[in-house]
Amino acid sequence: MQNDVYKESLELHQNNHGKIETVSKLKLDSAEMLSLAYTPGVAEVSREIARDPLLAREYTLKHNTIAVVSDGSAILGLGNLGALAAIPVMEGKAAIFKEFAGVDAFPICLDTQDTEEIIKAVKQIAPVFGGINLEDISAPRCFEIEERLRKELSIPVMHDDQWGAATVALAGLINSIKLTNQTKEAVKVVISGVGVAGVATARLLLAYGINNILYCDSQGIIHSGRDSLTKEKQELLDGSTAKSFEGALADAVKGADVFIGLSKPGLLTKDMVRSMSAKPIIFALSNPTPEIMPDEAYEAGAFIVGTGRSDFPNQLNNSIVFPGAFKGMLDANIPQFKIEMFSAIAQAVADSVTDLSPKKILPTMFDRSVVTVVSETIQRYK
Amino acid sequence: MQNDVYKESLELHQNNHGKIETVSKLKLDSAEMLSLAYTPGVAEVSREIARDPLLAREYTLKHNTIAVVSDGSAILGLGNLGALAAIPVMEGKAAIFKEFAGVDAFPICLDTQDTEEIIKAVKQIAPVFGGINLEDISAPRCFEIEERLRKELSIPVMHDDQWGAATVALAGLINSIKLTNQTKEAVKVVISGVGVAGVATARLLLAYGINNILYCDSQGIIHSGRDSLTKEKQELLDGSTAKSFEGALADAVKGADVFIGLSKPGLLTKDMVRSMSAKPIIFALSNPTPEIMPDEAYEAGAFIVGTGRSDFPNQLNNSIVFPGAFKGMLDANIPQFKIEMFSAIAQAVADSVTDLSPKKILPTMFDRSVVTVVSETIQRYK
Repeated sequence: MQNDVYKESLELHQNNHGKIETVSKLKLDSAEMLSLAYTPGVAEVSREIARDPLLAREYTLKHNTIAVVSDGSAILGLGNLGALAAIPVMEGKAAIFKEFAGVDAFPICLDTQDTEEIIKAVKQIAPVFGGINLEDISAPRCFEIEERLRKELSIPVMHDDQWGAATVALAGLINSIKLTNQTKEAVKVVISGVGVAGVATARLLLAYGINNILYCDSQGIIHSGRDSLTKEKQELLDGSTAKSFEGALADAVKGADVFIGLSKPGLLTKDMVRSMSAKPIIFALSNPTPEIMPDEAYEAGAFIVGTGRSDFPNQLNNSIVFPGAFKGMLDANIPQFKIEMFSAIAQAVADSVTDLSPKKILPTMFDRSVVTVVSETIQRYK
Repeated sequence: MQNDVYKESLELHQNNHGKIETVSKLKLDSAEMLSLAYTPGVAEVSREIARDPLLAREYTLKHNTIAVVSDGSAILGLGNLGALAAIPVMEGKAAIFKEFAGVDAFPICLDTQDTEEIIKAVKQIAPVFGGINLEDISAPRCFEIEERLRKELSIPVMHDDQWGAATVALAGLINSIKLTNQTKEAVKVVISGVGVAGVATARLLLAYGINNILYCDSQGIIHSGRDSLTKEKQELLDGSTAKSFEGALADAVKGADVFIGLSKPGLLTKDMVRSMSAKPIIFALSNPTPEIMPDEAYEAGAFIVGTGRSDFPNQLNNSIVFPGAFKGMLDANIPQFKIEMFSAIAQAVADSVTDLSPKKILPTMFDRSVVTVVSETIQRYK
């Protein structure tokens, strides 16, 4: 079945030569219209923008256009395939932005993987854009690139692999603990995988007030006795109220309420699920193969299971976050993303589910109201 | 009247927030379509491109998309207004590409005016594009930037202020000397203004076989006794068969058959036109105010007058060249522009005029066949 999807996808891409086209909003079918859209009329628009640079947002595509930027270093789960191989993914993302939120988006795939060069290139191409969606850039460079660009640019910058993933995980968690009658202060969380999405998810949970978190990476539980922790891991450890101890993932999940996997296929066993608290909440988000398959998790007593896949209930899909997030930023002309915006989006998305149940913790991206919920939430930060 | 155009143009830009939008070629209205356009299906497209980079042209927007790149250093006739002020012009150009030739085009306005940084930035963003149209970049940097990018990139690069302008001037000249029964070998040409368009026009005339050319810049006739000539001016002087002598523009045009002005308003006087040969051909291309107004030129005996303006006969407008030129390069997947392509385009465009007369030396951009003539001509160089 996977092979069919691959074959059909290749055909679709070949037949259409990609997915994004640029279209003129004006029909240039008369000399008069050309004189307004181009010379001589356009000279006045240029002069006005030179006089007041803020007018670029009023008079040009900058008003509603973002760049979807990648260096191809971490394409989907495929690894470092480079700039050309990133194009179909970034084009797909650009198509989703337009189709779901009316945001114009153009793919930029950079032929460099050097942190400073990426930062410089994005700053140099920024004038025509109203926002920058970073995508599929590997850790740890992605953290510095996002942080620096947010400081050095006057348009919103968001690395979706971090904040899209984190926001949808938090939204799902908010509704899950609602269903288990737990509080954010008391719930015990284990995060497996402390890469791009793991770090951002942890930061967002901490910012939201979920502090009892144990982290596991490929070497087991992250604790204060570990040598040479990365800056990000040390920061997360410092922010957690969980008792820090040595051990493996199996030790970490004993008695835990929530498992959030942003790691590798098959890491979570049925025995581990059985060792968790009474109503285990399992987000097995490794894609396409989760840390544990939903049927196995349920057999072992899981109360709620979410994955990244569309063929099981409870898909935790960042597509419910990023289109509305940029739409809100552009519509309200908000200069920069802040972490509290993502907490607020997660809360609003969670609250928007009216038929909440263990098999329906989140809206899907086809719920037409979700873009509005997200964009209206972010506009409160104007 | 100019003020009305300016006012209307501002309103048009404000109401539409620019002129270009990005549109998805696919309706993403089902989970199935999303699984083909995005994950999981798109993974196979990325893998295939990683395996064979040439497939990027088949499977992505690279097939039919070019960048319209400026640094804002020489916007129209307005000078160095910077990247933001360049956006409306590049957007207009992108709209023309799509409307007239079906070529997808996206404006890139770079926030740097350093030659090496521009070259590096364009190379870094090149993966998603099938061609680069450079625009409104000042001399002499534009010459090196184009030359280097042609060598260092594997997609076609053309600075339209050079080659669009030069090609349309040569096309007009070919038909003009047809009407005066002159030969390219014998016709005496004066080029006034040796900037971006002047240098390229001279190079193209020389490549076509029109060698009897005198050049004038702000210091008068360019001759071998002049100190510190730029590289470009020295090269042109070396290629000309005209007798090199000292003097002003008035001295240069005495007895000349053709005046090509790419310089400044009002430089050519009626007396100068009277001093030319029997049937003066005057291309007064300074924009919006020509070197001599058409009515004055005719009063002084001009046989053919062309300007850059749409409100007089014989508009020499590069819009008849650039859309079809890139369409041809993309359709035939030709790796790089060469000067002989522009000669061939000029000849083909000139030959396409069936109702040739002194008031109709060229097609207009609204002649629907001109894009086809240009693109089919360039495809011969596959």
